Amino acid sequence: MLKHSLRLFPRNLRFHSSFPAVKSTISSGRHKYKISVGGLVLGALAGASLGLSEWSIKNEQFSSTTSLEDLQPPQYCHDEKVFDEAVKKLKAILKDDPASFTVSKEELDSHSDSYFNSHHATSEQRPKIILYPHSTQDVSEILKVCHEYNIPVIPFSGGTSLEGHFLPTRIGCTVMVDLSMYMNQIIKLNDLDLDVEVQAGVPWEDLNEFLGEKGLLFGCDPGPGAQIGGCIANSCSGTNAYRYGTMKENVVNITAVLADGTIIKTKKRPRKSSAGYNLNGLLIGSEGTLAVVTEATVKCHVKPMKETVAVGSFPSVGDAAACTSRIIQEGIQLNAMELLDDNMMKVINKGGATYKTDWIEKPTLFFKIGGRNDNIIAEVVSEINRIAKTHGCHKFEFATNDDEKMELWEARKAALWSVINEGKTKDSDINVWTTDVAVPLSQFSKVIEATKEEMTASGLQNAIVGHAGDGNFHAFLLYNDEQRSKASEIVDNMVKRAIDAEGTCTGEHGVGIGKRKFLLEELGDGPVDLMRSLKLAMDPKRILNPDKIFKIDPNDDEE
Amino acid sequence: MLKHSLRLFPRNLRFHSSFPAVKSTISSGRHKYKISVGGLVLGALAGASLGLSEWSIKNEQFSSTTSLEDLQPPQYCHDEKVFDEAVKKLKAILKDDPASFTVSKEELDSHSDSYFNSHHATSEQRPKIILYPHSTQDVSEILKVCHEYNIPVIPFSGGTSLEGHFLPTRIGCTVMVDLSMYMNQIIKLNDLDLDVEVQAGVPWEDLNEFLGEKGLLFGCDPGPGAQIGGCIANSCSGTNAYRYGTMKENVVNITAVLADGTIIKTKKRPRKSSAGYNLNGLLIGSEGTLAVVTEATVKCHVKPMKETVAVGSFPSVGDAAACTSRIIQEGIQLNAMELLDDNMMKVINKGGATYKTDWIEKPTLFFKIGGRNDNIIAEVVSEINRIAKTHGCHKFEFATNDDEKMELWEARKAALWSVINEGKTKDSDINVWTTDVAVPLSQFSKVIEATKEEMTASGLQNAIVGHAGDGNFHAFLLYNDEQRSKASEIVDNMVKRAIDAEGTCTGEHGVGIGKRKFLLEELGDGPVDLMRSLKLAMDPKRILNPDKIFKIDPNDDEE
Repeated sequence: MLKHSLRLFPRNLRFHSSFPAVKSTISSGRHKYKISVGGLVLGALAGASLGLSEWSIKNEQFSSTTSLEDLQPPQYCHDEKVFDEAVKKLKAILKDDPASFTVSKEELDSHSDSYFNSHHATSEQRPKIILYPHSTQDVSEILKVCHEYNIPVIPFSGGTSLEGHFLPTRIGCTVMVDLSMYMNQIIKLNDLDLDVEVQAGVPWEDLNEFLGEKGLLFGCDPGPGAQIGGCIANSCSGTNAYRYGTMKENVVNITAVLADGTIIKTKKRPRKSSAGYNLNGLLIGSEGTLAVVTEATVKCHVKPMKETVAVGSFPSVGDAAACTSRIIQEGIQLNAMELLDDNMMKVINKGGATYKTDWIEKPTLFFKIGGRNDNIIAEVVSEINRIAKTHGCHKFEFATNDDEKMELWEARKAALWSVINEGKTKDSDINVWTTDVAVPLSQFSKVIEATKEEMTASGLQNAIVGHAGDGNFHAFLLYNDEQRSKASEIVDNMVKRAIDAEGTCTGEHGVGIGKRKFLLEELGDGPVDLMRSLKLAMDPKRILNPDKIFKIDPNDDEE
Repeated sequence: MLKHSLRLFPRNLRFHSSFPAVKSTISSGRHKYKISVGGLVLGALAGASLGLSEWSIKNEQFSSTTSLEDLQPPQYCHDEKVFDEAVKKLKAILKDDPASFTVSKEELDSHSDSYFNSHHATSEQRPKIILYPHSTQDVSEILKVCHEYNIPVIPFSGGTSLEGHFLPTRIGCTVMVDLSMYMNQIIKLNDLDLDVEVQAGVPWEDLNEFLGEKGLLFGCDPGPGAQIGGCIANSCSGTNAYRYGTMKENVVNITAVLADGTIIKTKKRPRKSSAGYNLNGLLIGSEGTLAVVTEATVKCHVKPMKETVAVGSFPSVGDAAACTSRIIQEGIQLNAMELLDDNMMKVINKGGATYKTDWIEKPTLFFKIGGRNDNIIAEVVSEINRIAKTHGCHKFEFATNDDEKMELWEARKAALWSVINEGKTKDSDINVWTTDVAVPLSQFSKVIEATKEEMTASGLQNAIVGHAGDGNFHAFLLYNDEQRSKASEIVDNMVKRAIDAEGTCTGEHGVGIGKRKFLLEELGDGPVDLMRSLKLAMDPKRILNPDKIFKIDPNDDEE
């Protein structure tokens, strides 16, 4: 089901030979040379016999940021013979065990793209080999070799990201490091400390199940299949973020391998710390471009003693959003507050993923209400009901037992699949574009409604799901190949709308390749150039997941 | 009251002239030169006429980290004439307004040290001038000049940090940029979005008071007098962190000026984002070494509709800690959970800072319990009481009205001052060492008790206050000049004990100069060398708050 609708980097980037700009003072980050006339001549002569500027030269003297124009293109290993030499070493690290690497077409394909990606790989964009390390030490040795040989490395775990995050842009020389095969163990639960040590390849649902047996839960609930390494790389969150925070708030420490093979552990296991730079913070959301995460200690939370689900149906998105705003303003802390629009309710009814098939086809809020005991829960439910009613809620129902709770929440969980199924009943080759933005709470309703208006006018089937407590919503667009540009335009406008509303181009999905232009639009050059400086400090050879989040190659002419 | 008990950097660091190590491949971060034999000769000749290595050369080829040994010493402006030229420009930026800069002895003194610092400035360690900018643009222009002239810059706001954070280590050439004078405005409250835009010089208590009138609160409650810029720089927290998170969880965006004068704004105002690197995360806790924070948008929270305070007295720290552990394990979310040890209760009784002077002089827990209404509060209080009783609580009392609530919480607020006052009744020149660590929750009691044992055996007056819900505690030691080394040893051991218990050398106070050695001990070379790489990427000239958090000068021979 891989699509080939976009070509990225159709050519291998070629070696550029050029001399550094000759200025009265040549600087390059950490050097400053005062040049005499004789030295200038000699320097020029020296330069002539040097294979200069194979990498990059920063023209700005000691600047704090790095613009794309400052860089020379990265130089990766395109010599097949040399690459094969490296591969031999890589296999040897994994004891030449054939179960620890693969070049099978099926695996190379599935590690390059997915049905859900907004940006798809061309048929050439494949890693050369996939490695399945067994330990952090393996990963370190792998990186040392790839660093030496200038080989791009893409870390891979669940493969559930959505913006071409793991797309192998560098054809013919990319190595993928897949942690899901052998580095998928829960290492140690420290229940009194409310944290758990895991390897990066642990699926979050498995972790949650393990914790659940002990009355605990993992704070983040992203898309199914995501693994902890990817949760960290993508700064994931989910419906629970409103109560338990995003990944940024749920990581105690990270063990990672840097581009040159150095292993770091960012912290021990304190609940909080002011000791030095927040390396956790930097790595979370860095999408595999700064380090390969191999292990982490993540927080866990005590499951609420009691929890119920309530559902309220509203005349409009505006009414639903006003209701959530009032709940927030009254300081009522719920465990989740989700908005499903009328289109979503329609497809849920049609799709039959839930027993209930007579949901009111209007904007609907789903609430998760937790508390110590039934009395407290009942009090909160009654408050929500009161507020909902004052905002036009037609119908408010809540679960009185676990079965009812599951039944009601099932609709929320069924959202995405219902949309896809609905589309496939019409066209078996239908594509789905799933994207997200986040805005200040006060802008939530306005941006959703304007987006819905445009989506409706386009004629494309669409639906919206929102994390109402965080101002973050997802849009699903169904389109066939001919309709792709229309879908793309809708997404463009939605993101621009969010940015204009002081929001962000992505609340959870991340940037990958698909949203690079939006990141620039959202933040401007300064912060992105700063990110580039940080990237180059940690990965001067630019081998870690190249071309993601922001451009690292002046020859990269893709949007 | 400034102390001169430590000499730091007694000499000005001198210019080092040395040639780069000649290797078959010379690398420097972003350059790679393949050198032919002729090129080597020419390169050597070129090198001879170049004033090389005035800054630093990274010997490691394209490494991801930077060790101290990789660096040459930083070169700052020590030429008085040149410095004066710079100062002229700096004053001109501030329109030569005499109210916008000072060189008064009193101000230079108070901007170099404080009574509470663990590390004190020598009489020489003063800034040359203090500037009071009026805007982010002023700060940008100031940094541009200082960057051009290689002048160290120390950002200053509340001056309440504790580990020599703003100590001017570089004698004779440091400029201090004090944001508290003119950049102290609350810019805009976005109440529906639960965020507020402020300048860095806003004191957190003023912000909290402003928000309080609107039924909101600021999530962090650090030491009195701290300002938002410092709160960010230090990743502060306080008693409320248990409920509302630390500064890391409470910042929406930061406007900052980088070392070269570039102004960046890290994000707009979404409640959450996965867009690009977490620059908020990186700047929070960077102690002024990566950028000068000028503005920020911080989160605010809805004040609990009802809140009460309960107090329980326990036979031992172990019992109190077991009680807090049980409360946490049962998933009871309180607004604060503070431990004051027996010594602290004694000095509170003696000090008379509270009306009540008959506190039981035993380890005491102070709880803040919030909720929607009195029923819910009563339920939670009853649960706490139950749990406390099963852990040996002698006496449990709780407030039934606001006056009682304030009365009970007053003891917690009076902690530090009570300790100091107690000390001063004995010796008017008494010093106080206030330090903190954080450990996993399960280690809280053990580390506190071992620390108390050592403090008691030393004979030095001491007391402990702990944020029991976060595993973070503060120790106060009173000592005279002769006893300083004994106090220092106790602190050393306390921090080592915390690190051995998988904790951190500081939960809230930060590293400054005082805890640099502990940071290394806690994390090892890898992470600290990584921090150094990030520092050098953002501030290659090393002008921003030099010598803090970790060493940036191979000639720095202080611990």
